[in-house]
Amino acid sequence: MADVVEFRKDGSGALVRMERAEPILRITLNNPPANALSIATMEALGEALDAAAKDDAIRIVVLASTGKVFSAGHDLKEMTAHREDADGGRAFFEKTMRMAADIMLKIAALPQPVVAEIDGLATAAGCQLVASCDLAICTDTSTFCTPGVNIGLFCSTPMVAVVRAAHSKQAMEMLLTGETIDASTAKDFGLINRIVPQQYLRQIIDKYAAVIAAKSPQALRIGKAAIRAQAGLPVAEAYDVAVATMVENMMADDAKEGIGAFLNKRMPEWDRK
Amino acid sequence: MADVVEFRKDGSGALVRMERAEPILRITLNNPPANALSIATMEALGEALDAAAKDDAIRIVVLASTGKVFSAGHDLKEMTAHREDADGGRAFFEKTMRMAADIMLKIAALPQPVVAEIDGLATAAGCQLVASCDLAICTDTSTFCTPGVNIGLFCSTPMVAVVRAAHSKQAMEMLLTGETIDASTAKDFGLINRIVPQQYLRQIIDKYAAVIAAKSPQALRIGKAAIRAQAGLPVAEAYDVAVATMVENMMADDAKEGIGAFLNKRMPEWDRK
Amino acid sequence: MADVVEFRKDGSGALVRMERAEPILRITLNNPPANALSIATMEALGEALDAAAKDDAIRIVVLASTGKVFSAGHDLKEMTAHREDADGGRAFFEKTMRMAADIMLKIAALPQPVVAEIDGLATAAGCQLVASCDLAICTDTSTFCTPGVNIGLFCSTPMVAVVRAAHSKQAMEMLLTGETIDASTAKDFGLINRIVPQQYLRQIIDKYAAVIAAKSPQALRIGKAAIRAQAGLPVAEAYDVAVATMVENMMADDAKEGIGAFLNKRMPEWDRK
Repeated sequence: MADVVEFRKDGSGALVRMERAEPILRITLNNPPANALSIATMEALGEALDAAAKDDAIRIVVLASTGKVFSAGHDLKEMTAHREDADGGRAFFEKTMRMAADIMLKIAALPQPVVAEIDGLATAAGCQLVASCDLAICTDTSTFCTPGVNIGLFCSTPMVAVVRAAHSKQAMEMLLTGETIDASTAKDFGLINRIVPQQYLRQIIDKYAAVIAAKSPQALRIGKAAIRAQAGLPVAEAYDVAVATMVENMMADDAKEGIGAFLNKRMPEWDRK
Repeated sequence: MADVVEFRKDGSGALVRMERAEPILRITLNNPPANALSIATMEALGEALDAAAKDDAIRIVVLASTGKVFSAGHDLKEMTAHREDADGGRAFFEKTMRMAADIMLKIAALPQPVVAEIDGLATAAGCQLVASCDLAICTDTSTFCTPGVNIGLFCSTPMVAVVRAAHSKQAMEMLLTGETIDASTAKDFGLINRIVPQQYLRQIIDKYAAVIAAKSPQALRIGKAAIRAQAGLPVAEAYDVAVATMVENMMADDAKEGIGAFLNKRMPEWDRK
Repeated sequence: MADVVEFRKDGSGALVRMERAEPILRITLNNPPANALSIATMEALGEALDAAAKDDAIRIVVLASTGKVFSAGHDLKEMTAHREDADGGRAFFEKTMRMAADIMLKIAALPQPVVAEIDGLATAAGCQLVASCDLAICTDTSTFCTPGVNIGLFCSTPMVAVVRAAHSKQAMEMLLTGETIDASTAKDFGLINRIVPQQYLRQIIDKYAAVIAAKSPQALRIGKAAIRAQAGLPVAEAYDVAVATMVENMMADDAKEGIGAFLNKRMPEWDRK
């Protein structure tokens, strides 16, 4: 049975729920209806990701949310309130945007794969979150947009994630028009891996997560680090990184076990530490 | 009603027409049948783009062309004539290629979004122009190619734009075979955003341009600059750029107005300066 | 009629066959059933590619394989045997991975285009080989995967090629799940250019190769070098490279001939040296 840890802030309800059912950790944004990325929600989400990073029994993280909106992005009310600050809000805006960027980088740096589970609207920094997860599965009624141009605030931070996930003209269309795209278009654009019927979302996610959780944890950890290390390098330098990675991976226990099992046609038993 | 400025060279007909109907500027290549990018045409196009950059009442630029060819690329007759120069044409070829590259960079640097309106064939540097615009809408009978291999002149400058718009193998197929692709393939490849029936092209472009023109000009300007500033950076550095951009954007007038309007469920009024 | 050169190792059968039918060179992995990339096979493949690089009469290289598996990647038995080495295999693994990476870089550096002809399964380093060729054509029953996570050895070197061919989430799905994708998905992902019925594979490849072989060899050579030289550069620097390339290309014989032929509506005759 799952442990449930709730991250409460200021005595209010849990903004983020963490259900730990080894080997799967499910992190749920629980700040409906918008699941806005307020400072408190981002702090809780950051703590949940940090906890995941240290938890060796967790092989995969699912990032889900409560209600009809996956996340509507930053908390505009909270930000607007800080316009009253002596600096007009500048320090607070900096803190907000930095914290969101750090969460996106934390997802990429997490040793475990992170799968976004989307059922509903993902907009602005919510869309950034989807684009930043390693994998994303959504329901057929989910929608996506980066609508900052409608409120005078270009989605510059979401852009960083979206232009790295989609072709440039596709990203440009989302960013310049602010229009909402459906699940099928999001899949064409590369923001989404799979679209599933809503009634099967949880079942498919659980199965998908279990498939990945059954892989070698060492290999997943080594692989995610290698992907990050070679990102953006010229291809020859990327191979230098990857060749060194492969050698270390070959010397690690799971490769010995996994290759041995494969050659002997038996199931591997992974190192659990 | 639109102002029409025509860029004439050497007393001949206008090579580029500029129709200014605030907030939309329509720049039309008017050098049919090929709309070749001769030096004179590129000079006129460059001037039109420079004028757009300084024109605060213009919110979006449409780049169209006259006749059945969007653009066939460089003017091969003009280039061939310069083989008689003392240097065999070297200085002229350098000037030609440099000028074309500068136009592509100018489009990316323009504060306003640039939408290509294509009805017909876009080939070589004409295809480069399509790939370099922020967005592109074409008719269902439009076609695209980079056929330099057929004339002994690999499309190396178009390649720069095409490999940044499409997957590498798709770009390679265009570049190595020189074959013509249809609109649907171009959309799959990421060269095109939307395909429309010819009889509705102008109507759809006008509507599309009006949608973007209604967005916050500040946000569009800030966003286009941010996209360019972070291009090709490692993701953590890209976020440094984007976080700083978001803070400045939050402090600017349009974000105050836009977010305020959004929270108060009213239409925003953008700063028009 | 084709010359056939066979690369034998240790007196055994040919691991790689080289059929030279000017202007097409066909290199066939001939180490079935797995066409594993053992050291001996990689040495033979590397020699075949080196021979191609020096062979001015060859305009295009087809990389095919014998049997139902295009290539299953590294030779796990050979690698496992070297675990008995004094260093636990480290030096041998380094040699293996380095050699494979060098083959991928050699394909990119080859003056001629390289087309992969796939009929069957391409897995791990075999999938890397497909992703690394300039172009790839496969049968409709071909399949692709990077299943290292199943054996504790993340496909880090294949990853370098796959993330440069596909959208990041698509690459992630292949790498993290290890699941097999079909030809149609591989085409969507950008790993494959064309899917053809098996009974026509050879015929279509031959025709496709002949189309490319008829292009200007100078232009293809100049173009492949330019693609490599500008890869990963910021767009303005990429244009510096490409502009310089275009000028040299204009000064070369094939551009004079090709442009002249085009303007005079005759067939060009390419420089054959």
